[in-house]
Amino acid sequence: MRSHYCGVLGNANIDETVTLCGWVDRRRDHGGVIFLDLRDREGIVQVVFDPDTEEHFERADRVRSEYVLRVTGRVRARSEGTINPAMATGTIEVLGKELEVLNSAATPPFQLDEHTAVGEEVRLRYRYMDLRRPEMQQRLMLRSRITAAVRRFLDGEGFLDIETPILTRATPEGARDYLVPSRTHQGAFFALPQSPQLFKQLLMVSGFDRYYQIAKCFRDEDLRADRQPEFTQIDLETAFLDEAAVMDITERMIRGLFHEVLAVDLGAFPHMSWAEAMERFGSDKPDLRIPLELCSLDDLMATVDFKVFRGPAEDPRGRVAALRVPGGASISRKEIDDYTRYVGNYGARGLAWIKVNDLAAGVEGLQSPILKFMPAEVVDQMMQRLGAEDGDIIFFGADRASIVNESLGALRIKVGTDRGLVREGWAPLWVIDFPMFEEEADGSWSPLHHPFTAPACDVEALRRSPGEALSRAYDMVLNGTELGGGSIRIHDSSLQQAVFDILGIEPEEAESKFGFLLDALRYGAPPHGGLAFGLDRLVMLMTGSSSIRDVIAFPKTQSAHCVMTDAPSPVSAAQLKDVGIRLRQEPRAAADTPAGGDEPMQ
Amino acid sequence: MRSHYCGVLGNANIDETVTLCGWVDRRRDHGGVIFLDLRDREGIVQVVFDPDTEEHFERADRVRSEYVLRVTGRVRARSEGTINPAMATGTIEVLGKELEVLNSAATPPFQLDEHTAVGEEVRLRYRYMDLRRPEMQQRLMLRSRITAAVRRFLDGEGFLDIETPILTRATPEGARDYLVPSRTHQGAFFALPQSPQLFKQLLMVSGFDRYYQIAKCFRDEDLRADRQPEFTQIDLETAFLDEAAVMDITERMIRGLFHEVLAVDLGAFPHMSWAEAMERFGSDKPDLRIPLELCSLDDLMATVDFKVFRGPAEDPRGRVAALRVPGGASISRKEIDDYTRYVGNYGARGLAWIKVNDLAAGVEGLQSPILKFMPAEVVDQMMQRLGAEDGDIIFFGADRASIVNESLGALRIKVGTDRGLVREGWAPLWVIDFPMFEEEADGSWSPLHHPFTAPACDVEALRRSPGEALSRAYDMVLNGTELGGGSIRIHDSSLQQAVFDILGIEPEEAESKFGFLLDALRYGAPPHGGLAFGLDRLVMLMTGSSSIRDVIAFPKTQSAHCVMTDAPSPVSAAQLKDVGIRLRQEPRAAADTPAGGDEPMQ
Repeated sequence: MRSHYCGVLGNANIDETVTLCGWVDRRRDHGGVIFLDLRDREGIVQVVFDPDTEEHFERADRVRSEYVLRVTGRVRARSEGTINPAMATGTIEVLGKELEVLNSAATPPFQLDEHTAVGEEVRLRYRYMDLRRPEMQQRLMLRSRITAAVRRFLDGEGFLDIETPILTRATPEGARDYLVPSRTHQGAFFALPQSPQLFKQLLMVSGFDRYYQIAKCFRDEDLRADRQPEFTQIDLETAFLDEAAVMDITERMIRGLFHEVLAVDLGAFPHMSWAEAMERFGSDKPDLRIPLELCSLDDLMATVDFKVFRGPAEDPRGRVAALRVPGGASISRKEIDDYTRYVGNYGARGLAWIKVNDLAAGVEGLQSPILKFMPAEVVDQMMQRLGAEDGDIIFFGADRASIVNESLGALRIKVGTDRGLVREGWAPLWVIDFPMFEEEADGSWSPLHHPFTAPACDVEALRRSPGEALSRAYDMVLNGTELGGGSIRIHDSSLQQAVFDILGIEPEEAESKFGFLLDALRYGAPPHGGLAFGLDRLVMLMTGSSSIRDVIAFPKTQSAHCVMTDAPSPVSAAQLKDVGIRLRQEPRAAADTPAGGDEPMQ
Repeated sequence: MRSHYCGVLGNANIDETVTLCGWVDRRRDHGGVIFLDLRDREGIVQVVFDPDTEEHFERADRVRSEYVLRVTGRVRARSEGTINPAMATGTIEVLGKELEVLNSAATPPFQLDEHTAVGEEVRLRYRYMDLRRPEMQQRLMLRSRITAAVRRFLDGEGFLDIETPILTRATPEGARDYLVPSRTHQGAFFALPQSPQLFKQLLMVSGFDRYYQIAKCFRDEDLRADRQPEFTQIDLETAFLDEAAVMDITERMIRGLFHEVLAVDLGAFPHMSWAEAMERFGSDKPDLRIPLELCSLDDLMATVDFKVFRGPAEDPRGRVAALRVPGGASISRKEIDDYTRYVGNYGARGLAWIKVNDLAAGVEGLQSPILKFMPAEVVDQMMQRLGAEDGDIIFFGADRASIVNESLGALRIKVGTDRGLVREGWAPLWVIDFPMFEEEADGSWSPLHHPFTAPACDVEALRRSPGEALSRAYDMVLNGTELGGGSIRIHDSSLQQAVFDILGIEPEEAESKFGFLLDALRYGAPPHGGLAFGLDRLVMLMTGSSSIRDVIAFPKTQSAHCVMTDAPSPVSAAQLKDVGIRLRQEPRAAADTPAGGDEPMQ
């Protein structure tokens, strides 16, 4: 029906007769002439109808916003004064000869260029309108280009695209499963996969050697953060490769992707151990664009009388650390109070600080409520270690190491952002050498990744000191976001058993949950490992969006509700009976149903 | 860890030192030398260890079937007498120098080359073993190549790969939905999509112009036929294109795919109206490889006394038709009885027949229990119309047209197959000009496709005579299998309303089920249409497999059970409480759970 997309027309098309199809973005009357901005996915072009073409002029006069038109006309250069440099097609316009109204449109629920005013709930309710915005079109088009580039790369590297089941068994990732009652096996349930983890390992046991899938995954979690009940992973697994090879392939993939889609060269990704990342940034996904670092002071503070600091400094699980902010002495008392509340969200019970007014003046040149608790020579040593300079502020954390890391790590980002210290561009890195286990408060061990992650040590060392064992896991981090994570897996059933033992997973539980994997490891499992990227988050970063909802065509709200289709929704008693279940309570009346009850979006 | 895949080695590699990783397919001792067939996804190569390499020879001596090895050695030509032409790598072998056992293997639950003996249930239980069979490897590798080729084609045609939700609202396709109880909105349920139909139409309303997705779809049906609870569609939709353009794009896609993957040229696909397909083949997906056709006899049979024939011949909803089988006079009485039972499965109450022994002898030369009911001149006219020849058998159907079509259509395929009449190769076609509606026994109308299919007539003609209206639908058929189907959709809300009216869908029901689509049609919906292909079935045909289970990595049984993971499975009371449901009955004891209770596979 069309000869060209609207948005691709330019000087090269001058004097061509073109046929366009699209939506009326704007309609203006000016000097007896009608100007229509016609929009399709490639962009917008101005179409002019003058009264010479009487019948078509009259039709043009009657069209309104969002009418669907087919227009034939001649491309002509705009006169000097009417060139619009803000528009990709702004040097030309189409002189309309014929206009066909393919469909009319009721007055839109919101004007596309006023989307910010209406709020996200209205935009989600009329998502098909919201998706007409050029920004949304470009985001989803870029997403499509990203997945195509990823697939091309992996196809070229010999990866096979293999689908794994959506209706499956509860998976061991730890989050809550979405359940699907079975009709043919009443009382039994499928679970939607939290990841294809076990299936991709089985594909390696099957000998497929290199697998990938752009896979839907599901977690029934409370969506506090920017999460969705269903999300998409670039999931891959390889056999007979070590961590260096897996990291090389996936780093080349991401580097190639940024080069192809954004024309950005990410360079080689630095490697950083988990221990160093925690020490310097308080985070296992440090944002290296922010030039602020944590600095440990435990040795110095173990000597002071100030119990708030000495306690954690002496506790092997405690930590005392400082964050120096250059130029931060100008931060006001009120801002410090705000930051104190902010770190409180991460469990910190306060936020000690020192302002460096005049370093040459010694302690006299410093300003802080805590100076009185510290000997001058400790303060002096501390200032030297921190490289303090006049005009700095120094923030302190002293508590359990995990609280110090989380709170100062978060503060580092917050202060860095507030003060405009985040440098432009991209800062990728690999975090490696993770611990195998974290110790829980009750002394039990839980896996830092998942229980199939291979240790970097042998089984004896692992059993002897689980707390010291490192894993063969690796995370790819970009601008403070974990893009992907993976590991070399355990391919030896006795080693797998040892990990289950350490985690306190009873043999019966292991057998019932993933006996098929344990079986498979006994029948000739190759060494294998892989990685999974969060596609939504990757696209969000690459499109500069602030939420993954902006890069998903039909997302759900934070209460896991689709405002447009009103899913989830009540079903009939017969449907429930079919699958052998009943409700614990009658559903609430329509007025109380989710549609009305969504929390704010952001 | 490897330098080459096993299966790619050949004469070009002679004298190279190679490192291979793979599984021991076979191990033989012969003349003091050990022969290992090493297998990976690309194929099998013979590795020879002789006692010169003492340490590695001893290791080779200890390996068993399905051990995972890493082997380094030198490629050498086989001597004349030991060349194995049945093996792709049969002209060479690898003289092993080093052998590392990467993993041992317990005795396999079945020998890979004895998979047929163990039955499908065992193979599904140990699917990761079954998938090691070269045949299964090749099928899934071909599937991966097929999806890659499809994506490349559609990317090149400007289609955008856009994901639609899996957790969604009950869809109107008519089959039973899989339900997912919501935790955050208790008493409400998501449904898994039977297709992305409504979402892809909304994407067209959004202006994405060309959409595709290789999409998981779900139907909770009884799996009598070769179906799966979850299956995969190549789903696409376009705006501003008519049926000719959609058919052109998708035909080029399938033709290109066969050319690229199978080196087969399908040629241009013939078009056939639904009416012609039913008339000649009794089927809307005729297998054109079978040179047998139905022939209508209603006009002739309306004149005879034989009530079994005259009744349907006179009934506007009845049909009397014949199927002539050349050379079929040799079919035995017992075989005819078998065919009679066979058509009985399709509702036929009998199977009349005439054997043509000697046409020149007139009625005397024919053999049949029904001849006595028909005047000789009718028999004569019938023989002429059918083009009967000596040695033929003619089968008859007389009943409601739908029963005649189904039973004789099925008999045509059965007899054609039994008698080796199916020609080699591929027979694609388009079936077009479908009726909009079928009349139900109670006089109500149901849609032949789905209620969003556009009619080929205007709204007045549609309302006036729904039974005569044709739709703008099209099905692609290959070798008697429906590969895909689609239509131009309704983009006008008043026309959509008219279709709902004819279907007897109340306004409240329409509003509650797909009010969002009706809304969307009012806000500027473009003309649009699309198609969906069944990927599993396409891959099955292209790999020459006999079941879609053979082209799905982890399929379910006919009772929708995964034998390997034992999904579905019971869940805890806490999990049920979390999502606000309870069971109608306690689950059966473990001994009775589905694992033990599956029907036969085929």
